[in-house]
Amino acid sequence: MTPVRVRAVDGDAATERPDQLVTEEPLEIRVAAPGQPAEPLAVTMRTPGHDFDLAAGYLVTEGIASPAAVARVSYCLTGVGEQRYNVVTVTLRHPVALPARRFTVSASCGVCGAATLDAALREVPPVGAGPVVPRSVLVRLPERLRDDQALFDATGGLHAAGLFGPDGARRVVREDVGRHNAVDKVVGHLVQQGGFPANDAVLAVSGRVSYEIVQKAAVAGIPILCAVSAPSSLAVDSARRTGQTLVGFLRGERFNVYTGAERVAVER
Amino acid sequence: MTPVRVRAVDGDAATERPDQLVTEEPLEIRVAAPGQPAEPLAVTMRTPGHDFDLAAGYLVTEGIASPAAVARVSYCLTGVGEQRYNVVTVTLRHPVALPARRFTVSASCGVCGAATLDAALREVPPVGAGPVVPRSVLVRLPERLRDDQALFDATGGLHAAGLFGPDGARRVVREDVGRHNAVDKVVGHLVQQGGFPANDAVLAVSGRVSYEIVQKAAVAGIPILCAVSAPSSLAVDSARRTGQTLVGFLRGERFNVYTGAERVAVER
Repeated sequence: MTPVRVRAVDGDAATERPDQLVTEEPLEIRVAAPGQPAEPLAVTMRTPGHDFDLAAGYLVTEGIASPAAVARVSYCLTGVGEQRYNVVTVTLRHPVALPARRFTVSASCGVCGAATLDAALREVPPVGAGPVVPRSVLVRLPERLRDDQALFDATGGLHAAGLFGPDGARRVVREDVGRHNAVDKVVGHLVQQGGFPANDAVLAVSGRVSYEIVQKAAVAGIPILCAVSAPSSLAVDSARRTGQTLVGFLRGERFNVYTGAERVAVER
Repeated sequence: MTPVRVRAVDGDAATERPDQLVTEEPLEIRVAAPGQPAEPLAVTMRTPGHDFDLAAGYLVTEGIASPAAVARVSYCLTGVGEQRYNVVTVTLRHPVALPARRFTVSASCGVCGAATLDAALREVPPVGAGPVVPRSVLVRLPERLRDDQALFDATGGLHAAGLFGPDGARRVVREDVGRHNAVDKVVGHLVQQGGFPANDAVLAVSGRVSYEIVQKAAVAGIPILCAVSAPSSLAVDSARRTGQTLVGFLRGERFNVYTGAERVAVER
């Protein structure tokens, strides 16, 4: 968190007081390999913390490297001055072809780095059968996600993504200003600590679900995706193609199942 | 909106019913100029509608072209099959150097297409003095934004951005699945219809404020930016550098002023 002083207005009264902001800083991700010097791949605005998870997860969910190819992740501590903790190098076991993509629009529901439609809508293999999860487990996930959202409570400005077992047991929860980053941090944790692919797990996210979130979850083999808010049309299309279960508007005892209803047990 | 059938679960009851999703589709933006054939520049996931505003606004807020350089925006109707309304060509009056950037992470708070930190944190000139706006005008903006959010009411899944005069008069409101796209659609409207730069106006956004939103508003000369939710640390830093007024947590009679408090008149 970043401290700041604000002018708080309430009706015709104004007071100066300290406040906390969610920290947003750029992270440059570089890729290196034997015989391949470190080369800049991407910059993302992110909330510092779990940067290695973010970098490793990004490479995997974007299809640039397999989990087994990731040898090491480190800060680039020389020649970058005050940005030293904003540059991370992922060292791979073997050289990879970096994408020839060029430019993208970033957005809440953007597509990573594609310059053409064909590149944007890449095919992801279908997920496996996965577990059947009782509704009683699903309806508790938003609360469990919030239990771990320490930063959100203080700043009100963060997305969260959390991976849970089919019984609702928490595996890993990550926060970020960017919803895609929160998912990449979860997947990067699995890549580095084990547990990839997570083909028996449920991913819960705090906000809306875009196409890209569904796609990243599919690359990680995650069969069930639950969101507190709305999915987009392309998120539903994508989940249908990959065979994922997509749940939205998960609030209180209610939710909508958009695809893969066979993995949700409603009856007691 | 895109119709869909959902399985709606409420406790141990489940019913099938029709629902509406916010439409998310990719838009490929191409750039052409005299002696420069159309070339793909970027793909963004967006909500179809006001696509020409989005494309023109994107080129301007990303610093690729000036408003005066935009000659024409059109759909690319040949050779793209079923994606014909997902490819837009912006024709410029003169050739421009397309960015040599390569790849980016898209995120709620992403940075467009930069591969390095230097490219990501581009400098934007300061805004002008701008108006002083009474708090009574600011506190009414969220409601005015919602008045025009036809799609949100039906789907619950959209961001909005709206430009208002210093007296609160509505100029243009746009919605999108991507918060940056909503801002680009507003700016692109000004680029095409007149009103750029909007150096006497207030931009209101429905959600959080990231660095990139502040930066896009600054390119359009907008001196006052108001958000219903939280700003990030870099958004506040950026607004301070450009001299913009940044207001957050605009709810009921309350709001926080993070920078540029001299443009907000609190006393009656």
